[in-house]
Amino acid sequence: MTDYLVRFDSHPEPIEVQTGALLVEAARRGGVEIRQPCGGQGRCGRCAVLIESGQVRRRSVLRLSKADLEAGYALACQTVVEGDVAVVVPPAEQIQRRLTTDHVAPEAVVPEGYDPARVQTVRRILLELSAPSMDDQTDDWGRLCTALRRATGVTRLDTTLEQIRRLGPVLRASEWRIAVTIDTGRDPNGAAHLIRVEPATVAEGAPLCGLAIDVGTTTVTVWLIDLLTGRVQFQAGEYNGQISRGEDVISRIIYGSKNDGGEELRGLVLETINTLVDSACSRTGIDATAIAKATVSGNSTMMHLLLGIPPESIRLEPFITPINHMPPLRASDVGITMNADGIVDPLPGVASYVGADITAGVLSSGLRSSPETALFIDVGTNGEMVLGSSEWLVTCACSAGPAFEGAGVLHGMRADIGAIEEVWIDGRTYEPTSRVIGDVAPRGICGSGLISLVAEMFLTGILDKGGHINQTLATPRVRRGLHGAEYVLAWSKETETGDDIVITRVDIDNLLRAKAAIYAGFNVLADRVGVPLDSAERVLIGGSFGKYINVEKAVDIGLLPDMPWERFDFLGNTSVRGAYLALLDREARAEITEIASSMTYIELSADNSFYEAFTSALFLPHTDLSRFPSVAAAMT
Amino acid sequence: MTDYLVRFDSHPEPIEVQTGALLVEAARRGGVEIRQPCGGQGRCGRCAVLIESGQVRRRSVLRLSKADLEAGYALACQTVVEGDVAVVVPPAEQIQRRLTTDHVAPEAVVPEGYDPARVQTVRRILLELSAPSMDDQTDDWGRLCTALRRATGVTRLDTTLEQIRRLGPVLRASEWRIAVTIDTGRDPNGAAHLIRVEPATVAEGAPLCGLAIDVGTTTVTVWLIDLLTGRVQFQAGEYNGQISRGEDVISRIIYGSKNDGGEELRGLVLETINTLVDSACSRTGIDATAIAKATVSGNSTMMHLLLGIPPESIRLEPFITPINHMPPLRASDVGITMNADGIVDPLPGVASYVGADITAGVLSSGLRSSPETALFIDVGTNGEMVLGSSEWLVTCACSAGPAFEGAGVLHGMRADIGAIEEVWIDGRTYEPTSRVIGDVAPRGICGSGLISLVAEMFLTGILDKGGHINQTLATPRVRRGLHGAEYVLAWSKETETGDDIVITRVDIDNLLRAKAAIYAGFNVLADRVGVPLDSAERVLIGGSFGKYINVEKAVDIGLLPDMPWERFDFLGNTSVRGAYLALLDREARAEITEIASSMTYIELSADNSFYEAFTSALFLPHTDLSRFPSVAAAMT
Repeated sequence: MTDYLVRFDSHPEPIEVQTGALLVEAARRGGVEIRQPCGGQGRCGRCAVLIESGQVRRRSVLRLSKADLEAGYALACQTVVEGDVAVVVPPAEQIQRRLTTDHVAPEAVVPEGYDPARVQTVRRILLELSAPSMDDQTDDWGRLCTALRRATGVTRLDTTLEQIRRLGPVLRASEWRIAVTIDTGRDPNGAAHLIRVEPATVAEGAPLCGLAIDVGTTTVTVWLIDLLTGRVQFQAGEYNGQISRGEDVISRIIYGSKNDGGEELRGLVLETINTLVDSACSRTGIDATAIAKATVSGNSTMMHLLLGIPPESIRLEPFITPINHMPPLRASDVGITMNADGIVDPLPGVASYVGADITAGVLSSGLRSSPETALFIDVGTNGEMVLGSSEWLVTCACSAGPAFEGAGVLHGMRADIGAIEEVWIDGRTYEPTSRVIGDVAPRGICGSGLISLVAEMFLTGILDKGGHINQTLATPRVRRGLHGAEYVLAWSKETETGDDIVITRVDIDNLLRAKAAIYAGFNVLADRVGVPLDSAERVLIGGSFGKYINVEKAVDIGLLPDMPWERFDFLGNTSVRGAYLALLDREARAEITEIASSMTYIELSADNSFYEAFTSALFLPHTDLSRFPSVAAAMT
Repeated sequence: MTDYLVRFDSHPEPIEVQTGALLVEAARRGGVEIRQPCGGQGRCGRCAVLIESGQVRRRSVLRLSKADLEAGYALACQTVVEGDVAVVVPPAEQIQRRLTTDHVAPEAVVPEGYDPARVQTVRRILLELSAPSMDDQTDDWGRLCTALRRATGVTRLDTTLEQIRRLGPVLRASEWRIAVTIDTGRDPNGAAHLIRVEPATVAEGAPLCGLAIDVGTTTVTVWLIDLLTGRVQFQAGEYNGQISRGEDVISRIIYGSKNDGGEELRGLVLETINTLVDSACSRTGIDATAIAKATVSGNSTMMHLLLGIPPESIRLEPFITPINHMPPLRASDVGITMNADGIVDPLPGVASYVGADITAGVLSSGLRSSPETALFIDVGTNGEMVLGSSEWLVTCACSAGPAFEGAGVLHGMRADIGAIEEVWIDGRTYEPTSRVIGDVAPRGICGSGLISLVAEMFLTGILDKGGHINQTLATPRVRRGLHGAEYVLAWSKETETGDDIVITRVDIDNLLRAKAAIYAGFNVLADRVGVPLDSAERVLIGGSFGKYINVEKAVDIGLLPDMPWERFDFLGNTSVRGAYLALLDREARAEITEIASSMTYIELSADNSFYEAFTSALFLPHTDLSRFPSVAAAMT
């Protein structure tokens, strides 16, 4: 019994469904591939499709922006067919990559009260110049500068020889009616960078765009922004092409120090960025020359590698960055696909292990918006953290190791298709239940899965306080393996690889060291400023890691401090949002510089109290159980 | 009877001479070619040779600098052999080009009272940075900027990405003892351009050089300067490689407007400049990377062509320059052979036909050093002139046409070998005597020869006041030719070409128009500010043209105002000297900007009084003979 026909752009035949069917069911029936990393819970937003025509009902739109909805997007796993419909499955969803091109994340909303006229960094100003005459023989450049100064107050205009070469012909072709694009992001007091001069008739109605780029060690995120409105037009993420040359910053630096390694790494990350920009342009129909500016955030190593600056000294004691505050650069010098005269503004960092991703993160987290103490965390390979308020900021970085990114763990993997991302263990049978990204047979365990697994093992008594596996339990899942005691999370017959997926004692030691380093970092920050850690009124969690972890379980293992739920705030990719804010708003850009300049950096490797705090935190959840009252309660 | 042996490096056998012989005599005897453009008068300085060993006596050293003398140079035409000597004839003298590499002209002396420590534009500062430590993790760039600010007061440092890339390795290789080369030429108030960071041990004792470049329509002049002392190390001039694409600025602009003509012209002048720089480097043994800065002067068309800026609008009413005040540029963007990060500073111009050659000329002429009124003139294809004092400046340009450069005249030529450069006519026989550059059979007449010829023809009655040739005279030298009446300056048997060299009525008309335009320009300037022309206490004559003309004869034809001899000052190449001063001294550089900004430009083509003055000046010497009392006296 057929009620409706669903047509997918990628499928020759219409698919017959009954009223009430979900789009994913129609797709499954027709063999149309739509990725559902969260298993159809409407949580990840990655199954967004475009409804070209027909009636549907969206059960959840949590992961869709207003712009997405207006454009006609719907989550295939949450959308009910209520008529004959035509659906476009965005191509990015059909490939085995973590492109997230099809929705605007909540962190990408235009900041409240954003007033382009007042704070815009990149401005396109229409100027009607008086034509020269025998009575006014002012040179072209002088004429431009004078008119611009009168219109905007800009007194100093940085330009390039190439721009001067093009000026005269453009002025005359436009009959002295021009649009001048300038960037005043760095100096609100009258200095600007000239980006483009074009005939006013060409500029009218033409797009004016910018890029916010976050260069992560693992993932590169690019947002394309309409600078006229501030709206995010397109978001995409992609593995950093450098991954094959080392998974963490240290191995990248080592690779980059050999022969032409630095140039190779620069080329790889540029390729990643430019692939994302290309897809942004082709998906939005925007020409790359319309992209006038890019702000870039990332950790200090990523920033240096992108710019081709040798980063060796970051790795070697005393851990020095070549440059924390970069001058604005021209796009042609950096190599990003955009207007060649456009400005690339690398955001400032603080130290070798507290980079622009953290200053941008602090900006976007709102940490400085209140005099109340708050804690900002970005956990990845390193755990960077900032304690502070509108009055003061103190920061440190713990080299937690890559355990939470799945490295240094036997069956660890990145949060990709086939990764176990959440685990529940039955307290009587010790049998686990898992959720796997992509709803497929598991290949390994990712960071959030490991936190979840260790917490469950601890709360069910499989692990003791010291992280030792209890080998006396009546379950075949606890056994001795090659690496000592281990727990079997999935039997070979259930896995994609055909091998058992286990967690070993060595893995657990690594995870404990990682979580202890992070928790010890919190302690050092609080001690340094003389406040108790729980005086933090808010815990602001940035980074992609924060997007997926279960706070309760992270508290259970002593990774995050034991605080009321409502104090935790998951902010998603705070680094790219910070870059976005700095792209839009020159006051935000000035604030990032202020953040980078005013933050007190504590070098943990030179701090004895860190080692003490670290040792105390090597237990589950901590030596001092009074710090974790909710966990103590759950253990009883 | 042999007294001494003279060995020339270019000749296999020693040449035997007697005591008292001149070096040129020894050369002639052995067939060694040494150019003597002034005919052996010690006037042009172009026969300079290097005395490697042996005793000589220099009769005149007028055209040799102190540095030349110290290096062992002597003028072959003025040097007496007083022992066995070994002589090197610089290769530049053996080729048919106007290279003037072998002497330092008087205009190239270090300015009196020059104090590098106070006014130097390019500075190399030795800095001993504190090494970073776990207690001081300041980034490399911040460390450099802070140390530099403390040492020099520089608060803003313009750099390039490439320089930042190189910084870390240099700091560490030098063990934090570095030499930093910066240019503060444009902004004495704290902004500087970074040129080079190198280990202090490498910089110590190493040369630090600059270039002063004058790009003339006809000739390009390059000076290599030791910036540590301010001394000119090397001077060379060469025809502008663009000459084959048009002799005057208008034809260059037209050529440059076609297809890739602009790029071709840019390449040609760069080739000329770089050939000169190469010879400067090879002759002085200096590496081009030691050249940290170049200042460039030239007329507006030459400046724009060198920088690849389309100059079309200069030629078309209302005659607009694309840019008068260029920002400082990096050498790699301009294409001059020097340190790629070095600064190229194009000096500012005033208008399409009053360029940087004139602002630089005014600077070096000292026009502004006194409250007395003075007149500055630079006559070439165009006649540019400035009337002014320390208080005010007014300028104009007359398109005199290229007659004084030998074009538009039947047997005109540039001031090169074979050009008649001075003429005397016997008042009874009308027979001429001529001096020819290079003392060879004549090929044509150059500008100074034409002035001399017209003056002599006028004073001997061959020409009347109106410039008409008196055809009733009893001499075969006055005859009717293809172009009407003409005067034969050299018979075919005396000339290199085998043709008669004549001056025709058409030629004389062209010359009268040229001189009338220039004199009319003087009048317009004086009228505009309401002073009589003879209130000018000094007449400062710049440009290569001024080097060769005979003032008395220029007054005779009404080209220059009739003033006492002592008011005239021949300053040589004031444009390159201005560039030299601006290279050395940031106060001089600031003064050029002030000159360019404060000069009042009068557009003659929009000025009716110019046409009246021009018409009155079309006579010999002028309609109003009372303006030329000395000529009136000579005519009686």
